Amino acid sequence: MHNPTNTASILTLMTEAAKSSGQIIRDNFRQDTRHENKSSHLDIVTKTDHLSQNNIHELLTAGMTKLGFAPSDIGFVEEESIADDIKKHNFIVDPIDGTTNFASGIPFTCVSIAYAVDKQMIIGLVYEPFSDTLYWGETGKGSFVKNSLFGQKPLKLEQKPIKSWLVGAHLNGLDVVDSQFATYQQIYAQVRGLRNIGSLTLDLCLMADNVFDAIYNKGCFMWDLAAASVILREAGGELYDYHGQVLDFDWQDTRKKYQVIACHPQSLEEVASFVE
Amino acid sequence: MHNPTNTASILTLMTEAAKSSGQIIRDNFRQDTRHENKSSHLDIVTKTDHLSQNNIHELLTAGMTKLGFAPSDIGFVEEESIADDIKKHNFIVDPIDGTTNFASGIPFTCVSIAYAVDKQMIIGLVYEPFSDTLYWGETGKGSFVKNSLFGQKPLKLEQKPIKSWLVGAHLNGLDVVDSQFATYQQIYAQVRGLRNIGSLTLDLCLMADNVFDAIYNKGCFMWDLAAASVILREAGGELYDYHGQVLDFDWQDTRKKYQVIACHPQSLEEVASFVE
Repeated sequence: MHNPTNTASILTLMTEAAKSSGQIIRDNFRQDTRHENKSSHLDIVTKTDHLSQNNIHELLTAGMTKLGFAPSDIGFVEEESIADDIKKHNFIVDPIDGTTNFASGIPFTCVSIAYAVDKQMIIGLVYEPFSDTLYWGETGKGSFVKNSLFGQKPLKLEQKPIKSWLVGAHLNGLDVVDSQFATYQQIYAQVRGLRNIGSLTLDLCLMADNVFDAIYNKGCFMWDLAAASVILREAGGELYDYHGQVLDFDWQDTRKKYQVIACHPQSLEEVASFVE
Repeated sequence: MHNPTNTASILTLMTEAAKSSGQIIRDNFRQDTRHENKSSHLDIVTKTDHLSQNNIHELLTAGMTKLGFAPSDIGFVEEESIADDIKKHNFIVDPIDGTTNFASGIPFTCVSIAYAVDKQMIIGLVYEPFSDTLYWGETGKGSFVKNSLFGQKPLKLEQKPIKSWLVGAHLNGLDVVDSQFATYQQIYAQVRGLRNIGSLTLDLCLMADNVFDAIYNKGCFMWDLAAASVILREAGGELYDYHGQVLDFDWQDTRKKYQVIACHPQSLEEVASFVE
């Protein structure tokens, strides 16, 4: 059933679904400020997360069926679902990465959709609705960015000297935050700057576009990483665990929490040296 | 010479100058990535900073002259100038607040222009060129925001409970960063989140628009604060020094470095309790 011509059609389908949910996010921005706490007051979800997820789920299911895939072959791993449904063809969906930004009124969030066949990531697609920026990558075929500011261009990561680095410095909860502050305090004197903008997925895409040079995160999930991992790897970057091993997704436990560092492979040793 | 009808004309002039420099910033974004270090590799300046500043200087000088002001009455305090030139009517200009963001490719920077008469701030205007967002305030007349996402609206700061706070967590150099990390590590457990997006001026405007609830900065200058101070105060917020005193600008030393906290006046005690 799956053949190369379908990949282009699936990329188109994912783009349409992401842009459609991007419109939902724009429409609800500064309107939907009510939220529920999930694990703590640091972890929130809004009505718009659910609207965006349902929209993507419906559009992808209908679109794949139209492309000739059997519904029994189409599965989903979604942030705002309780249970997953793993099939031959799976979509890994984060309906809003950067929910706190969204709920707080910072226009820096994204929709993230990955497509995997037989548990191998094939396509990653990330859409930032406020700047209308689309990032996508296809395993073995490169990754790209497109927006009105600089048109479309391929992504190719450069290694830079540490004093030019911008570091994506995430904070991931009370159990890990002390060690994270220790890392950031150590690295601060060596680099150009630290930023905590509030979306790991967008930070990884910005790394593929040579904005960030090192990213540290100690509390992320498959849906935060899946699409961006294709985009970053195709640009020449890599995701590692905190021991410096290339990150592998655990399909047996799709709710697993990851600790990741991301960088150019040639910067790994230096990036990992700051880990606490 | 100065009369109330001129205020509206001056606001129009400042808006035109800021938007014109915003276009320069957009045009050079991702093009002008070369920079010079100023005090250290953490403190940089680009060609575009100078282009933006010269553009504003020329437009304001020509515009004010056209409005009937004598050139000998028009002065400037500008980030990228060595010496200031204080007159009866002064403009305080930051041609790019968020130069590191600009040079690194993060589309979150702004142009900041304040207008003061007899050393009293009369108008503050901040323009974010990537989202085409304009913030402005006039002493005694309120402050406003305008962009294509939510149109034009007046700014009115609300006091929120600490667990809903978003904190603007700046890092300002090796001499102060340890105490800053101590503050952020303490406050982290109490609030919704910390953000370090890279522009103090925009953070202050976002506070006036109820995005940020507490902002800490230990290394800023008159040009980072002047315009935003009018916008924030007119929205009901306030700028304080690290002892909790309302911030006053030192016109004798326009290169003075400030340490500021910003918040709703009723939150001051709680915000100040985290200061190290």
